[in-house]
Amino acid sequence: PIAFQLKYEGIFKYAQFFQKWVKPILAECIATFMLVFWACMLQPGPDHPEGLASPLVFALAAGINLTIIITMFWDICIIQFNPSMTVAFCVAGVVPWRLLVPNIGAQLVGSALAAWFAALIRGIPVGAISITESSDLNAIFWAEFFFTFMMAFVALAAHSLTPLVIGLTVTQGVFGGWYIGAGCMNPARVFGPAIMHSDWNYHWLWWLSEIAGAVFAVFVEMMIFAPITVHQGSTN
Amino acid sequence: PIAFQLKYEGIFKYAQFFQKWVKPILAECIATFMLVFWACMLQPGPDHPEGLASPLVFALAAGINLTIIITMFWDICIIQFNPSMTVAFCVAGVVPWRLLVPNIGAQLVGSALAAWFAALIRGIPVGAISITESSDLNAIFWAEFFFTFMMAFVALAAHSLTPLVIGLTVTQGVFGGWYIGAGCMNPARVFGPAIMHSDWNYHWLWWLSEIAGAVFAVFVEMMIFAPITVHQGSTN
Amino acid sequence: PIAFQLKYEGIFKYAQFFQKWVKPILAECIATFMLVFWACMLQPGPDHPEGLASPLVFALAAGINLTIIITMFWDICIIQFNPSMTVAFCVAGVVPWRLLVPNIGAQLVGSALAAWFAALIRGIPVGAISITESSDLNAIFWAEFFFTFMMAFVALAAHSLTPLVIGLTVTQGVFGGWYIGAGCMNPARVFGPAIMHSDWNYHWLWWLSEIAGAVFAVFVEMMIFAPITVHQGSTN
Amino acid sequence: PIAFQLKYEGIFKYAQFFQKWVKPILAECIATFMLVFWACMLQPGPDHPEGLASPLVFALAAGINLTIIITMFWDICIIQFNPSMTVAFCVAGVVPWRLLVPNIGAQLVGSALAAWFAALIRGIPVGAISITESSDLNAIFWAEFFFTFMMAFVALAAHSLTPLVIGLTVTQGVFGGWYIGAGCMNPARVFGPAIMHSDWNYHWLWWLSEIAGAVFAVFVEMMIFAPITVHQGSTN
Repeated sequence: PIAFQLKYEGIFKYAQFFQKWVKPILAECIATFMLVFWACMLQPGPDHPEGLASPLVFALAAGINLTIIITMFWDICIIQFNPSMTVAFCVAGVVPWRLLVPNIGAQLVGSALAAWFAALIRGIPVGAISITESSDLNAIFWAEFFFTFMMAFVALAAHSLTPLVIGLTVTQGVFGGWYIGAGCMNPARVFGPAIMHSDWNYHWLWWLSEIAGAVFAVFVEMMIFAPITVHQGSTN
Repeated sequence: PIAFQLKYEGIFKYAQFFQKWVKPILAECIATFMLVFWACMLQPGPDHPEGLASPLVFALAAGINLTIIITMFWDICIIQFNPSMTVAFCVAGVVPWRLLVPNIGAQLVGSALAAWFAALIRGIPVGAISITESSDLNAIFWAEFFFTFMMAFVALAAHSLTPLVIGLTVTQGVFGGWYIGAGCMNPARVFGPAIMHSDWNYHWLWWLSEIAGAVFAVFVEMMIFAPITVHQGSTN
Repeated sequence: PIAFQLKYEGIFKYAQFFQKWVKPILAECIATFMLVFWACMLQPGPDHPEGLASPLVFALAAGINLTIIITMFWDICIIQFNPSMTVAFCVAGVVPWRLLVPNIGAQLVGSALAAWFAALIRGIPVGAISITESSDLNAIFWAEFFFTFMMAFVALAAHSLTPLVIGLTVTQGVFGGWYIGAGCMNPARVFGPAIMHSDWNYHWLWWLSEIAGAVFAVFVEMMIFAPITVHQGSTN
Repeated sequence: PIAFQLKYEGIFKYAQFFQKWVKPILAECIATFMLVFWACMLQPGPDHPEGLASPLVFALAAGINLTIIITMFWDICIIQFNPSMTVAFCVAGVVPWRLLVPNIGAQLVGSALAAWFAALIRGIPVGAISITESSDLNAIFWAEFFFTFMMAFVALAAHSLTPLVIGLTVTQGVFGGWYIGAGCMNPARVFGPAIMHSDWNYHWLWWLSEIAGAVFAVFVEMMIFAPITVHQGSTN
């Protein structure tokens, strides 16, 4: 279970519009911008055959990305920067349903801006994760389903290491998906680069598998594990 | 010493069967599934001579695997996903003896399912750690004994970094066992892939050395170090 | 928001000169010395074409550097060892304006000493990050602006993982800036090596972009996110 | 300042001999055994030209080694497994002088046993860090002095990440000492392998430089930084 919730305090209670709508939505936009910007910046271009193009660097950098952004917004709001997590958290009751569409919209805007900005700096469009005709769609679907399931499951656990460990699930996802072309775990991660590359081939697959995996994690947590927990995680 | 124990609270007390049998056993099955699934997914196939096949990636991914799963189940139950840890924790009195057989059974089922599912996605059986006729059985036995001893020793210590550090012992075990073919530290890790590869060569060696190492850690802790501890770890 | 501040206690109150001027300034000098010394020591010389010269090592070592130094001075003072962070923290009111010039001066002295000492040990001047005529100045400027923005944003958040996560922003910055020659995020990091190499080509670019990025983070935090926070980060 | 001290409680007070002599000395022996055993196990032999022999693996594994062992003994005693830290902690008043000689003796016994045991398992003596006639003694001396200074300085700071960050100082030391043949930071690390290799060439250099660096850190901490600290580290 999530140990923190958005609260309103004392004299600031009147500023409900700002608190309820502006801050969380702006936070989603900025957080997704950062995620996609860093992901695009470290992808090699056509004239860089070597360099950073190792699975280890991609996996570590992807995990570090999440760890940074979650810590950054830790005491501001429950940050998602991921449409599949937004859906899952709405189902879990952690994020109010009224934020579903605005948050996802803000994430997609942030993703698009980051991909555009990174392409400006790098001089070429970068950051796409392509699904081609030769990809094994079943393998990608189920890998994404399970990887996102595990990431969402960790996000629902309470421990002081949580921001780091959520990042590690993404590192592990990049490792695990390497040989089959999976390891995205976030539809907003591929949305912006898809615009810049104009490559929408099987783009729906990321959305479907990842939202399904994240929502499945919420069901498993709520049906089986959440009731009668130990209540010790939050104090450790 | 372990700082957390399964507790029953208020209105849910009646659900003792669910709490005592369903939750811990299901958690073991799911946790071991995750462990073995990720381990299988990042192993290269015959048509991938390069890529992830570096000791660094295997060692880091193995450690990350444990860190994720321990954090995931932190406030749910004392997760083991490892028959040698289940035996050691039963000896230590941390896990009740009644769970010994069901937990190990659940771990083996989870391991088999994960190996089968990973083979489906990847198209080939993956994830085996082979002991061949040319392996040095003595070296593997004692390396596994010491590596599992150290992992179990850390698992009995109390610190907020514990989930991460238990993972690091496995990373270190993969490093330390690299040149002699050891570094498993978990019989359930090799059980599922052994089914898929139908390779049971010296499979008993993993069980014997790792259970012995983990139980030895409990004896050293209980006989020498546990009495009169500083009692500060849990607050830091 | 920063959860800790310099305080004066009991019998030591009379030692205000020592507390107000000597300790923070000396801490800045020693911290920057460590940062630049380690950065210089791991840079390969002309007779080491291989070895540590991989983006992964540079990125991890740069992040580890910050994590160590921040932890080291955690309960001593709000350490900056970075002119752009000193300016940002003065704007944020976290560091008093009276320390602006002395702190930056101490950082530059520490940086120069470290570069000189490392050159003595290694036998050659090491540690420069060069901007040449063929570099894309716009790309470097905006990359440094955004990387420093993110680092400063994390430094203003409160979480027990903060020292580690600030380090990770630098790791990520080295990854993200690799292809365009950016990823410094600290004018004091390049000042000392610039003296030893007598290479001041576009040195002002680091100062301008990084101070602008850090100050922009303070504005975003103070204008948008700091008011009415959740106040939970410091207890987790 | 160190936040934890050995305490005696209630009914166990009579067991002072066990607490005062047996436990800390045995802990030093076991801890140093683990450190040297893992360090030896991952060093390549003559028939392994490739594999783990990368600076990154050595540096990460060395840091992970310390993190594991410190966490392991966190609530048992103030573990040192390093003669230079034992001397420094005695000077600082953190460890009683009566333990100086027994602790260092126990460390050397543990180191010798580990090097012998690793040589048995691997079939060859492994783990030495050689100083040859062509080494630059001045460079090694000052590098070891500064690296050990920084490690000891971190060990005196209070933060929940301390076990991890002490490990990171060793990782950084291996990076920083790579090109000049330094990066040991612990006389007990090289003592056991020196026996197995019968190579005592300039062995005294490790002891001299590292003890000097660690004691210097205590002086800097006690003279300059420890008085009037913020007293916030231990709660974060």
